[in-house]
Amino acid sequence: MGFLDNLDWRFATKEFDPEKPVSKEQLEKVLAAIRLAPTSYGLQPFHVYVIEDMKIKKGIKTNAFLQKQMDTASYLLVFCARVDKDDMKQRVDEYINLLAGEDKLKKVKLEPARLARKASIQSKSAEEFATWAMKQCYIALGFGLAACAELKIDSCPMEGFSKEAIDRVLELPESLKSTVILAIGNRKEGPKNPKVRFSNDELFTHI
Amino acid sequence: MGFLDNLDWRFATKEFDPEKPVSKEQLEKVLAAIRLAPTSYGLQPFHVYVIEDMKIKKGIKTNAFLQKQMDTASYLLVFCARVDKDDMKQRVDEYINLLAGEDKLKKVKLEPARLARKASIQSKSAEEFATWAMKQCYIALGFGLAACAELKIDSCPMEGFSKEAIDRVLELPESLKSTVILAIGNRKEGPKNPKVRFSNDELFTHI
Repeated sequence: MGFLDNLDWRFATKEFDPEKPVSKEQLEKVLAAIRLAPTSYGLQPFHVYVIEDMKIKKGIKTNAFLQKQMDTASYLLVFCARVDKDDMKQRVDEYINLLAGEDKLKKVKLEPARLARKASIQSKSAEEFATWAMKQCYIALGFGLAACAELKIDSCPMEGFSKEAIDRVLELPESLKSTVILAIGNRKEGPKNPKVRFSNDELFTHI
Repeated sequence: MGFLDNLDWRFATKEFDPEKPVSKEQLEKVLAAIRLAPTSYGLQPFHVYVIEDMKIKKGIKTNAFLQKQMDTASYLLVFCARVDKDDMKQRVDEYINLLAGEDKLKKVKLEPARLARKASIQSKSAEEFATWAMKQCYIALGFGLAACAELKIDSCPMEGFSKEAIDRVLELPESLKSTVILAIGNRKEGPKNPKVRFSNDELFTHI
């Protein structure tokens, strides 16, 4: 069964069953999908905190309207955007080094790519830059959700939390801002409501 | 083969082969995945223009640094965020109607859910609201990319275009803003560079 076969099966799980944990092996597959998600300029401008520690889970729950996912999930994946422009310019250099490896000629050839990335970062205001980084978190979130569906483990994407409070709970440096949480586990019970979506006509225009 | 099996195979395709088009049937599967992507409050705050028309593709290319994906792709999926708060409040009513169906008691029970959604929309500034809607586009983009990988069709997520110009090319109403483009087709040639990603240690912290 693939991701597409399980689209109707998956739902935004409200409570997980702590007695049925997600295995480390399954977690690794979800993280592999997140790592391989495409991002703007290949820069992967995020860091993901993978939380198994119950005390931290409870600390997040306290700052997230006491939603049950937070302390019943096997893992909380907190996507944090890298919002510091200087940090990201350094990451451009690291990215180019990754691409070039030991090939010095290739590194020279990649100079325009390096400069284009840095110029793009520089051209953005601090707020535009942070928004750009946060959007990339959501592609990776999508890949994480898709991986969960394929593996038939349950998940819930969560935005309802105090970002400032979670940044403090995780003791994040200034350069990282918590953006969205992916809770994963196995469902305690099925969905209470049938899955509803707006119609194709409502969502798509063909030209 | 599922999505996870094809993560290494997929890459951000730079040029598609117009002689090897994506079929309508494949396109429908990609759109189904986009439609079933989860979004904040279930509101799916976007509209997707699915572009097959060559004149429109060329119009987009002109405003997107002449990137070859734009007129070699079988389809360009232009994700447009719904950025008007009043429009979204009306969408909340439509969403609750979808959930309740003909069940009048259920509709009454859903009143708190309706009010919570409207209050959340109202609490955001125009800019915060637009950013929220745009982020949801990126989850759907992630699902579209995952669907393409599973179907072994090629894709490229694209942010490098003039949003204002594309809004004009598509004659968008004020309530819609082009946000990101998913180009789909079949690759003309393989990737020029090996796939590189930051390391697990660089991307993840386990707590």
